[in-house]
Amino acid sequence: MKTWLVTESDLDRIALGAGILGTGGGGNAYLGKLRARERLRAGQRIEIMLPSDLHDDDHIISVGAIGAPTVGIEKIEQGAEGCRAVRAIEAATGKRATALFTDEIGGANALEPMIAAAQLGLPIVDADGMGRAFPELQMNTFFIYGATSTPGVLADEHGATVVYQNVATARRLEKLVRAGTIAMGCSASFALPPFSGAQIKRHGIRHSVSHAWRLGDAVIGARVAKRDPVGEILHREAGRILFQGKIVDVHRWTNAGFARGTVSFDGLGAFASSRLQIEIQNENLIAQLDGEVVATVPDLICIVDAETARPISTEEIRYGMRVAVIGLPASPLLRSMEALAVIGPRAFGYDFDYQPIGSYVEPQPVEMYRDLAVA
Amino acid sequence: MKTWLVTESDLDRIALGAGILGTGGGGNAYLGKLRARERLRAGQRIEIMLPSDLHDDDHIISVGAIGAPTVGIEKIEQGAEGCRAVRAIEAATGKRATALFTDEIGGANALEPMIAAAQLGLPIVDADGMGRAFPELQMNTFFIYGATSTPGVLADEHGATVVYQNVATARRLEKLVRAGTIAMGCSASFALPPFSGAQIKRHGIRHSVSHAWRLGDAVIGARVAKRDPVGEILHREAGRILFQGKIVDVHRWTNAGFARGTVSFDGLGAFASSRLQIEIQNENLIAQLDGEVVATVPDLICIVDAETARPISTEEIRYGMRVAVIGLPASPLLRSMEALAVIGPRAFGYDFDYQPIGSYVEPQPVEMYRDLAVA
Repeated sequence: MKTWLVTESDLDRIALGAGILGTGGGGNAYLGKLRARERLRAGQRIEIMLPSDLHDDDHIISVGAIGAPTVGIEKIEQGAEGCRAVRAIEAATGKRATALFTDEIGGANALEPMIAAAQLGLPIVDADGMGRAFPELQMNTFFIYGATSTPGVLADEHGATVVYQNVATARRLEKLVRAGTIAMGCSASFALPPFSGAQIKRHGIRHSVSHAWRLGDAVIGARVAKRDPVGEILHREAGRILFQGKIVDVHRWTNAGFARGTVSFDGLGAFASSRLQIEIQNENLIAQLDGEVVATVPDLICIVDAETARPISTEEIRYGMRVAVIGLPASPLLRSMEALAVIGPRAFGYDFDYQPIGSYVEPQPVEMYRDLAVA
Repeated sequence: MKTWLVTESDLDRIALGAGILGTGGGGNAYLGKLRARERLRAGQRIEIMLPSDLHDDDHIISVGAIGAPTVGIEKIEQGAEGCRAVRAIEAATGKRATALFTDEIGGANALEPMIAAAQLGLPIVDADGMGRAFPELQMNTFFIYGATSTPGVLADEHGATVVYQNVATARRLEKLVRAGTIAMGCSASFALPPFSGAQIKRHGIRHSVSHAWRLGDAVIGARVAKRDPVGEILHREAGRILFQGKIVDVHRWTNAGFARGTVSFDGLGAFASSRLQIEIQNENLIAQLDGEVVATVPDLICIVDAETARPISTEEIRYGMRVAVIGLPASPLLRSMEALAVIGPRAFGYDFDYQPIGSYVEPQPVEMYRDLAVA
């Protein structure tokens, strides 16, 4: 079995790439990166394994942070919440985790399971359930394709765990868990029921950690080489540039628990005479160029700083920022009829159909897999 | 062991008496009475046992309804929520319940455990943890005197259960469970961690079910005999009349999740030249006669219809009602320093100390215990 031992510089790349895959949401990956780095400096290991190396009857538990990204920045974890959530899932199911993973590679949750995995001595599977960030927990490929939604566990910084059992649907679980998260101070750890190795292989989005790493490596490599980081992303990825310009207007409001907004951009360079508008519901969902829809959820609409390609979250967006907007195609697992019913434009309340922006190219595992086999 | 098999007419008495002990809150006992009656008509038994017959190592689980009383009237139970909550506590602790009981005799929760007990074939212990109703779950004698507050279980009408574990304090459990209840539609079933027979004997308020029965029997007996029901209550109880009169003003507002209000009464009869004011936070908490405090929480301030002695809940109160206000002394278990810190006037935000309205006389088990021994 080939595995990959994550280094501190890998964490830099994964956190940066996860920020881009967050499409404006998913929470801040920087704090998670620092906490994961502390695990490495304490002598613990973060080991990434290929989904193809899973046994069909393995038990893989997704663990991560849940709550408001703005709160997550200020309310620091006690440190072992993720471990407690995993252990409570194990106790509720009688199944021992053979590996951990994230159901959401975009944003903070790319790092969260690594922190628990380092503490528990478990590997991380190079896969996720979104290929990006989504605001609610029913919005992952496992639940979309029929995985049982409970037990789920919330864990807070005081040692409390809350075990949700026999909840009929993932959507109802989301409702109950969201209320619990708010009562815990709008930020907590959450673990999903164990998925089997067969489920991960069938419904997981493969090599998501590698994808985040590759995006981060493009940006960091370009910065070091004094090349254009945005150009380097476009060079390596199957996506395309949607816009370059300046933020000229930001409207924000809150509706049904979503941080919503409309952001307007005036074009620069090749887009000098154009205007872009992006609709936000926690993540960037819809991009309209001169009034025409050019990208929609579940495809990724990533706003990055024009110079540095630093990902810009929806909370940070403000007048005057110079940005590039990159569109990345979503996995086919997110583009099916079943998936679009949960995460397509209509599922978010828009009155038009999904319009794919291009073909998805499955990310390959990072090259290190070949060099750093440990078993 | 002497036990008492509850009949339909007993249910009438218990529900009516529980309404009076609710001191305006605790939820509507009428619907619970109908549901308990259905259990009897289905051939199931509701059996009451004395707390003195418990073994010290028995496991007694409190189960009841939680949520907004106004919602509880409209959102009818599926029927087995209480059973599921009890079973989930048993699964989480590995302890089988030997009996059930209510931690809150006032209002709907006098009946709720009887419904689950009939279904599960378990007896009900003639004791509770409040001797009345209180709005929050940390406000019972077991938690006041240091019982472990978890695991607790919420169960909804769809079969879901939520298990709260390792929550440090009962107050924090209340916060988490309240949020879960709201997400379940403001009405759910809740079970507390098992208390031992020794705990019930030491910290339980003894013969609460009998107390409710006795109050209900006083009222129903007087009605049948064409005597004055209010007078009959005063004849049988250690309490005293606080006021007789007419509601002339009702102010309501909501603050920090409490249904709050101030009710003003103009006197009639012996109180003709006086005015009473009652402060409400879900329950009737403070009574002031002509500006002077005459009764405070935890003593019971019970508003009943002047003619029929039907208990009047805080939601029902309206201009023009003719009522009697009865004060009943609280158990010494509610009058200690530890208890007053949780349920005294200052704990509810009032700037004065508790002033006892008289001596508590422990209720005796209903006479039927002597006649209907079944084991």
